[in-house]
Amino acid sequence: MDKLRIAVIGAGYWGPNLVRNFRNSPDWDLVAVCDLDPQRAARVVGDRSTVAVETDVSRLVHRDDVDAIAIATPARTHADLAIAALEAGKHVLVEKPLATNLEDARRMVQVASDMGRALMLDHTFCYTPAVRHIRQTIADGVIGDVLYVDSVRINLGLVQPDINVFWDLAPHDLSILDFILPSGLDVGPVTATGADPLGTGRACLGHASLPLPGGGIANITVNWLSPTKIRSFVVGGRKSTLVWDDLNPMQPVALHDRGVHMAKRPDDLAERTQLTVSYHMGDIHVPALPGGEALGLMVEEFAASIREGRPPLTDGESGLRVLTVLHAIDESLATGRAVALQQEVAR
Amino acid sequence: MDKLRIAVIGAGYWGPNLVRNFRNSPDWDLVAVCDLDPQRAARVVGDRSTVAVETDVSRLVHRDDVDAIAIATPARTHADLAIAALEAGKHVLVEKPLATNLEDARRMVQVASDMGRALMLDHTFCYTPAVRHIRQTIADGVIGDVLYVDSVRINLGLVQPDINVFWDLAPHDLSILDFILPSGLDVGPVTATGADPLGTGRACLGHASLPLPGGGIANITVNWLSPTKIRSFVVGGRKSTLVWDDLNPMQPVALHDRGVHMAKRPDDLAERTQLTVSYHMGDIHVPALPGGEALGLMVEEFAASIREGRPPLTDGESGLRVLTVLHAIDESLATGRAVALQQEVAR
Amino acid sequence: MDKLRIAVIGAGYWGPNLVRNFRNSPDWDLVAVCDLDPQRAARVVGDRSTVAVETDVSRLVHRDDVDAIAIATPARTHADLAIAALEAGKHVLVEKPLATNLEDARRMVQVASDMGRALMLDHTFCYTPAVRHIRQTIADGVIGDVLYVDSVRINLGLVQPDINVFWDLAPHDLSILDFILPSGLDVGPVTATGADPLGTGRACLGHASLPLPGGGIANITVNWLSPTKIRSFVVGGRKSTLVWDDLNPMQPVALHDRGVHMAKRPDDLAERTQLTVSYHMGDIHVPALPGGEALGLMVEEFAASIREGRPPLTDGESGLRVLTVLHAIDESLATGRAVALQQEVAR
Amino acid sequence: MDKLRIAVIGAGYWGPNLVRNFRNSPDWDLVAVCDLDPQRAARVVGDRSTVAVETDVSRLVHRDDVDAIAIATPARTHADLAIAALEAGKHVLVEKPLATNLEDARRMVQVASDMGRALMLDHTFCYTPAVRHIRQTIADGVIGDVLYVDSVRINLGLVQPDINVFWDLAPHDLSILDFILPSGLDVGPVTATGADPLGTGRACLGHASLPLPGGGIANITVNWLSPTKIRSFVVGGRKSTLVWDDLNPMQPVALHDRGVHMAKRPDDLAERTQLTVSYHMGDIHVPALPGGEALGLMVEEFAASIREGRPPLTDGESGLRVLTVLHAIDESLATGRAVALQQEVAR
Repeated sequence: MDKLRIAVIGAGYWGPNLVRNFRNSPDWDLVAVCDLDPQRAARVVGDRSTVAVETDVSRLVHRDDVDAIAIATPARTHADLAIAALEAGKHVLVEKPLATNLEDARRMVQVASDMGRALMLDHTFCYTPAVRHIRQTIADGVIGDVLYVDSVRINLGLVQPDINVFWDLAPHDLSILDFILPSGLDVGPVTATGADPLGTGRACLGHASLPLPGGGIANITVNWLSPTKIRSFVVGGRKSTLVWDDLNPMQPVALHDRGVHMAKRPDDLAERTQLTVSYHMGDIHVPALPGGEALGLMVEEFAASIREGRPPLTDGESGLRVLTVLHAIDESLATGRAVALQQEVAR
Repeated sequence: MDKLRIAVIGAGYWGPNLVRNFRNSPDWDLVAVCDLDPQRAARVVGDRSTVAVETDVSRLVHRDDVDAIAIATPARTHADLAIAALEAGKHVLVEKPLATNLEDARRMVQVASDMGRALMLDHTFCYTPAVRHIRQTIADGVIGDVLYVDSVRINLGLVQPDINVFWDLAPHDLSILDFILPSGLDVGPVTATGADPLGTGRACLGHASLPLPGGGIANITVNWLSPTKIRSFVVGGRKSTLVWDDLNPMQPVALHDRGVHMAKRPDDLAERTQLTVSYHMGDIHVPALPGGEALGLMVEEFAASIREGRPPLTDGESGLRVLTVLHAIDESLATGRAVALQQEVAR
Repeated sequence: MDKLRIAVIGAGYWGPNLVRNFRNSPDWDLVAVCDLDPQRAARVVGDRSTVAVETDVSRLVHRDDVDAIAIATPARTHADLAIAALEAGKHVLVEKPLATNLEDARRMVQVASDMGRALMLDHTFCYTPAVRHIRQTIADGVIGDVLYVDSVRINLGLVQPDINVFWDLAPHDLSILDFILPSGLDVGPVTATGADPLGTGRACLGHASLPLPGGGIANITVNWLSPTKIRSFVVGGRKSTLVWDDLNPMQPVALHDRGVHMAKRPDDLAERTQLTVSYHMGDIHVPALPGGEALGLMVEEFAASIREGRPPLTDGESGLRVLTVLHAIDESLATGRAVALQQEVAR
Repeated sequence: MDKLRIAVIGAGYWGPNLVRNFRNSPDWDLVAVCDLDPQRAARVVGDRSTVAVETDVSRLVHRDDVDAIAIATPARTHADLAIAALEAGKHVLVEKPLATNLEDARRMVQVASDMGRALMLDHTFCYTPAVRHIRQTIADGVIGDVLYVDSVRINLGLVQPDINVFWDLAPHDLSILDFILPSGLDVGPVTATGADPLGTGRACLGHASLPLPGGGIANITVNWLSPTKIRSFVVGGRKSTLVWDDLNPMQPVALHDRGVHMAKRPDDLAERTQLTVSYHMGDIHVPALPGGEALGLMVEEFAASIREGRPPLTDGESGLRVLTVLHAIDESLATGRAVALQQEVAR
């Protein structure tokens, strides 16, 4: 099977990771790396290599030895670059977030559809063995109805000049929720609180609550100001509770065979019926997850979706759903109220 | 030094713990245990003992061989029992929460003041070596300005017939905040979200955000529905970050010498000044905490406050402050808005 | 059912733990506490109690309101006290080690047998839910043939004036091995190494290797000089590996569904057959263990063995087997060679 | 500064790791990869690369565009390859173990010395930030006299056709000891025990005790049969205890400010003086270690030693010392006795 030919735009923070994974992949032939700064691109390409270094994006997107373009540039440039590449007939992979506003995002999705090309979001976490396992566990009914999700992502991070902490970190949590929950991001009115204790002009830490269709709730905690890293994700269900600790390499996922159910029992003292919640306290099960770097599995899925002519698992629509919730979060931060989503996000 | 003489009312869930600690204390002589069910009281007293078993509260509070009364009964009975004991000239220790409404609570505080007797709240966590250490660390300026607090208390617990999860679990978090923060519970408008995915008629899990005076925020997550226990408490400051994991017996408290500070640097590409947050990534320090069961230290403080004629560390006022925030949480849950505290809670 | 009547000799380090557990047990009525120092005994008995305080052992063992005696005194006094009590017709519980030499130990076992009374060793760890679970797991064939056991017990402890670190700590490991292994302490020649880096005159840390019947090996590491506590116990089998971390309250026991098996495969380069070990890498399973303090279960077993007229799970014979291995360890330390056991220890 | 030019022999298990690190290094220019199987070498080189693929070792070692050779082939081929490269004037890096017998090893060291070329052992662990920190902590006197070292390396691993588990795994522990201890591997008579419970014809798990000069002891536990991985390394000193857990990415090294000291106190009961060990129970300190992959730091040291004309930190002599102890371990396994080292290994 011939390799697909890829070019990467952006040799900054994330681009080199994409370059490394496209290079290691049996599906891909890395043809070119493009950056405004040719030295930076050359460093990423390395010595004794014949991979091309480009600085001109419009020349790059019209190279006829390139099948697909990966975009790892600042978010505000995503829309123009992606649309140029799609219109040149290339398949496109975009870093999250898809765009900086819903209009751009909808346009990108539309152009990809019109051109019949793949538009894929690099929602990296969806390709980790842990998240794939969680999705399957929920789909198999092992967890039962989802009562709550608690996602905590406390990460050292640069305070971004244009966006708040939710736009920087929450796309990870939101894309995971979109991926694993049967109802995806079809959530009720969103309540968000934030704080800016250093006076940077934007929320540097915050919390968002997303009501789930069945009465449950998903909570997201994000924080830029903690140099201490926490990445925990708990899915509580009627039948069992799943705990994912992304920083525990030995036991990343644990399924606690512990669930709750309601019972009615007479309460003699109060002369009425008392609702009680009973717990089932069973064992803990730590699955052996398959190996594999998430980025490697992501570029594999990009190739597979192109070859099979189907949308990738994390397609442009998923990026649009994430943006829709981010906008509701921003509005809740500004108004102090719960905010309904602007548009239908049902999958 | 003569021992002080104590009687305990309530031989249910918590009473036996109090009995054990009063018995083991060199400060206290346990005189009587009182419960509506004399068998239950007798079981707590045990064999070959001359400790009295009482069933009549009004007789108990008038025993003249008793200096103080500890109340471990349902919350709705606290006010009447405490006021009867105070009016009989006894010092009183009450389980949290102080009462079920602010009116009762204010009355209890007033009677204690009028009678010149100690009214102490059993805010047990404030007597753990960990919380005492955190309070001191903040007071010493080691943490710097508090930017955020994240308290997660996920506990298996019976769904209570009359109260929601905040009233059951959050008094712990609130009493700790009241104890360790220089500004105590003097917080801005409170935002709370909750969920009742089992249809019990009350929030079984929830989240509350409490704005702190300096622009920071304290977040509290409580949950009844998870049979998996988490008790983590993070205090992020400008100078360092403190992490308390109450379920890690080997390293309960860790001080991360990691702080953040703002800097301005020119952003050449954008032709403007960019605010950046710099991190100081130092070592982690795990203090050797003194031993001692929290309840043991609590009964010691009860005796000391009586002997020294001063208010206990966790006095009636602290119980009143906790109730005030609980009421704001309830109102925010009901209205979907941020709710200011009903009264001044500054210490 | 009438309670059995117990007296405890020794109000020093361990005695108060026994007193507490006999008091809390529905099986036992604590009649007396005996110590050379009456104040010390009185402190253990506590206020407002009618439990007798004794200082005269011979009077105690002849009290006719006592069915059984628990001995928590220094090891060199065990033989005389236990034999006096047995000859007075009492059942006896002894702290480990059974005695300080094999002759005494054999005599104690003999007298108990002659008198038809229970002689029980307080091998506390055998009554933990973890060890009981391990024993059952091995008995059920889940682990398969035991290939190795690694027990590490690194404990802060006083350097004892008369005994080395093996006599102080290894009785725990040895009694556990005796309890859980199908072949018990029926081991091959023992190799032990030790060190005395502080010049105390006896080994303060050491390592012993005990060959198991099927070709496997049990390793024991003990250490007095480390203020850092480690208590890990690994049982590696053909089918699975069990890891017990006694200091991890949340997940004390984990069964790794990971085993090894031999295979032969042709090695073309070397033109011969190569033996290979294949691994089965399955999930990890953390069982929900029943609650219960080990000492509480131990005093329950003491009562049950008396009532049912059968030897207790950890009887005098088990104490004798432990002593036999301790003697071989001492001889290996002295001679630098592997040393066979002095007598048959097969169960 | 011009880059040094490297060729790597061996494209099997370890070679690709070396290739990746030489490629990423600013010190090195990767010129060629050599393997008997040209496809395997080509795969390691990758697409769009001008790095040479070689299959003929003798042609490779005489290329005049190569300054140094890295050897990642089976141990039995190390001596011939290294000597050929050294005699061709190249600097040489060798995988551990240096050779399969002491004669070969001594010859390699001699030829390197005669030719004035660097002979470096890839004792990778010595270049981890953790081991460098441990070495410095001991050198700075923070730990005090080393009382014991406990190294546990339980690793899934193929049963090797020619060597036992000590030759496979213990070179890691031994090279670390050689690197961090002031007295290096200058140890007393070595006692080793092993087991072969699967009947493979060689020890698959074992334990070695190495007496240290000051009365302390170093214990090494190695195990091929456990699919469960443990890599813990404890250095106990008079002043403090250092714990390294190589599988804990968040807190790999912890320094426990806990030490022991001897005291004499009168023992009234025994009418003599009792030796007691006192413990100092202080805080735990987790240092922030610098980042950096060990292999990257290793290739950097290789370049620095060549440029500065000095022996590398882990030179041929260190490899010889490790082999000397491995031979003593083998002899102890065979004879059941403690075995003195064959030759002087003092640094």
